[in-house]
Amino acid sequence: MARINDNYLKLAAGYLFPEISRRVDAFRESHPDAAIIPLGIGDVVLPLPQSVRDAMHRAVDELGTDEGFRGYGPYEGYDFLREAIAEGDFRSRGVEVSPDEIFVSDGSKCDSANIQEIFAQSATIAVPDPVYPVYVDTNVMAGRTGVADADGRYQGIEYLPCTEQNGFLPEPPSRPVDLVYLCFPNNPTGAVADRAALGRWVAWARENGAVLLFDAAYELYIGEPELPHSIYEIEGARECAIEFRSFSKSAGFTGVRCGYVVIPRELEGRDESGRAVGLHGLWARRSNTKFNGASYPVQCGAAAVYTDAGRREILANRDYYMANARQIRQGLDELGFTVYGGVNAPYVWLKTPGGAGSWDFFDAMLERANVVGTPGAGFGACGEGFFRLSAFGREDAIKEAIDRIRQAFGS
Amino acid sequence: MARINDNYLKLAAGYLFPEISRRVDAFRESHPDAAIIPLGIGDVVLPLPQSVRDAMHRAVDELGTDEGFRGYGPYEGYDFLREAIAEGDFRSRGVEVSPDEIFVSDGSKCDSANIQEIFAQSATIAVPDPVYPVYVDTNVMAGRTGVADADGRYQGIEYLPCTEQNGFLPEPPSRPVDLVYLCFPNNPTGAVADRAALGRWVAWARENGAVLLFDAAYELYIGEPELPHSIYEIEGARECAIEFRSFSKSAGFTGVRCGYVVIPRELEGRDESGRAVGLHGLWARRSNTKFNGASYPVQCGAAAVYTDAGRREILANRDYYMANARQIRQGLDELGFTVYGGVNAPYVWLKTPGGAGSWDFFDAMLERANVVGTPGAGFGACGEGFFRLSAFGREDAIKEAIDRIRQAFGS
Repeated sequence: MARINDNYLKLAAGYLFPEISRRVDAFRESHPDAAIIPLGIGDVVLPLPQSVRDAMHRAVDELGTDEGFRGYGPYEGYDFLREAIAEGDFRSRGVEVSPDEIFVSDGSKCDSANIQEIFAQSATIAVPDPVYPVYVDTNVMAGRTGVADADGRYQGIEYLPCTEQNGFLPEPPSRPVDLVYLCFPNNPTGAVADRAALGRWVAWARENGAVLLFDAAYELYIGEPELPHSIYEIEGARECAIEFRSFSKSAGFTGVRCGYVVIPRELEGRDESGRAVGLHGLWARRSNTKFNGASYPVQCGAAAVYTDAGRREILANRDYYMANARQIRQGLDELGFTVYGGVNAPYVWLKTPGGAGSWDFFDAMLERANVVGTPGAGFGACGEGFFRLSAFGREDAIKEAIDRIRQAFGS
Repeated sequence: MARINDNYLKLAAGYLFPEISRRVDAFRESHPDAAIIPLGIGDVVLPLPQSVRDAMHRAVDELGTDEGFRGYGPYEGYDFLREAIAEGDFRSRGVEVSPDEIFVSDGSKCDSANIQEIFAQSATIAVPDPVYPVYVDTNVMAGRTGVADADGRYQGIEYLPCTEQNGFLPEPPSRPVDLVYLCFPNNPTGAVADRAALGRWVAWARENGAVLLFDAAYELYIGEPELPHSIYEIEGARECAIEFRSFSKSAGFTGVRCGYVVIPRELEGRDESGRAVGLHGLWARRSNTKFNGASYPVQCGAAAVYTDAGRREILANRDYYMANARQIRQGLDELGFTVYGGVNAPYVWLKTPGGAGSWDFFDAMLERANVVGTPGAGFGACGEGFFRLSAFGREDAIKEAIDRIRQAFGS
């Protein structure tokens, strides 16, 4: 029989969200009448913006005509979208990113999963703890780790603790590593890094020859004006950082699928012989060989986000979700929970009461309030004792969830 | 600096199609008035079918409503599509494939590029020569090969010659290998394997514990009724084959992006210790971790292909392209070219006149007829001396191309 990739067998249990689904399905089966409120997976609920839908309709109609039909698009995305992104997400904030440094994809999960492929198998990795599981699992699958210990930590990965003590802002690793995954506003803790904190990371990366893999999927949720939205707002980041962006949480694209990655021309790695090699060219080669571009109607929909009408719509949706975040924070605060996040991020990170284990609290929350959240331990050892609630819900569902939590956990 | 994946540097020149684009762009620049006819990349030209567009419009509208909005879909694709596929592509031909053995993706290029990840880095590979470059390049990038020789053949890959002598039907390798890529109807040669030929492959794979990676992206173009459309029409294939399907060439989805892969539950590989491991579970884990499902409106469009109206539309488009293929075959035949393919496949594989090198013939065809084809050598050493013309064009453009070829190359 063909030899399989043994690294897959090192993966602990299932990927986090399927495990949550499994438990929810089991609960649903034994409690068919329970009206479960899902605040776990962080999925948007508001309708796809009108301007996005209009653009998608136009694109579909265009594909129905002899003159307008388009087949294979550019692997890296259509220029109309790359230019809209360069202008709307960067130039408008005083950041210079060229359209040809932008690679459009079918979603940020794919990008943040695939980026590790252009680096050596021997490349060393650091990740915050807790962390979005995709960063870790994809490196396990690529053979960059040993097996997991009892806490689910893999040998060979440097974990950077994010704790109440450090305000969930990890410190750079004590030894040099090749790659560091960072995500701000953070999933799952909701923490956000200011200019000084990101500046320290950029300085450290340049000093140590590391590449920062910066996930900015939640940048739209930054409310405080002085906070940076892009790593490239930090001087020197073009020589040390790749940035990931997503239309999922900003424009309701979780089911429509579009994201992008920025790889500056200056960014380099080194080959076996020590020679510098541009990462932009490596990622272009990967895209050319393994990807055939994002769906054309989807790219048209994404471009509509940068019109005035589109911008208004996504900001209105953001405000809706952030009002939910405030409501969750306030409700939990009144109940005496210790809460973090939810200010510049759509996630509230709460301390489980009485030091309960986070999967135990997950089960209690599901059984007693019929509310689904995400156990912090699912994001890493330092997530133990914490629990993530997502602000991506209907206003009335959020209100109902808080009421039920009050009844279940209030004194 | 971070260590890069040195295997990328082994890749010869660019990926084939970007190299063609480069040459065409250069020609266009020096001949701005030339009306180039593109029969190179194999891209469809007919409008997206009405039934597909209707379904996509409905899906986009649905996403605009409170009740109809859907966020993250199932990683493996929506049941409505997986069920339509199982019925329409398999059960209707007497083949048993269960919906949960079908993984829907954003395109077959991604699937055939990514499948190698679930196998060991030490897994041995055989590919036909000539071959779709993605099969080879993705294994080079994964580190399964040495460097390329002067013919572009990589050390460590077993090449299976497809020649005029064997009717472009490769023989199984002389030594056991883990994985064999096969594609019928074939890209680029247009050859097709009958039941007996596929039966020999399945018997060989079972005897040698190999997995066949069977690319059936062009199955709709099979015209002769006795030919198999799926590897699973062959007894025993469920224990040794993975099949790739695409909506690109059948339903005009090259820019819309949808495909799928079938991994039967019976199919197993072995881990380091020799223990059997189901490949279905490994691919599910990859999908869960690195992919977030294909776009919802796209999946709705794909499902429409299985309605009566959708089926009628895609068959009409197929007939249109196959009339082109006949015209190309006949035109070239009259000019004294030796031609293959174009009967059960949308590609015509012609022998370059006078034993010309295929890139030289590419340049001559571009300069003298302003027609773009694909040099056979771009698909492998055995493609040298051959040239691929695609039937995916407008009827009038095909006619014009043949006229120009007659003027340029006729005696």
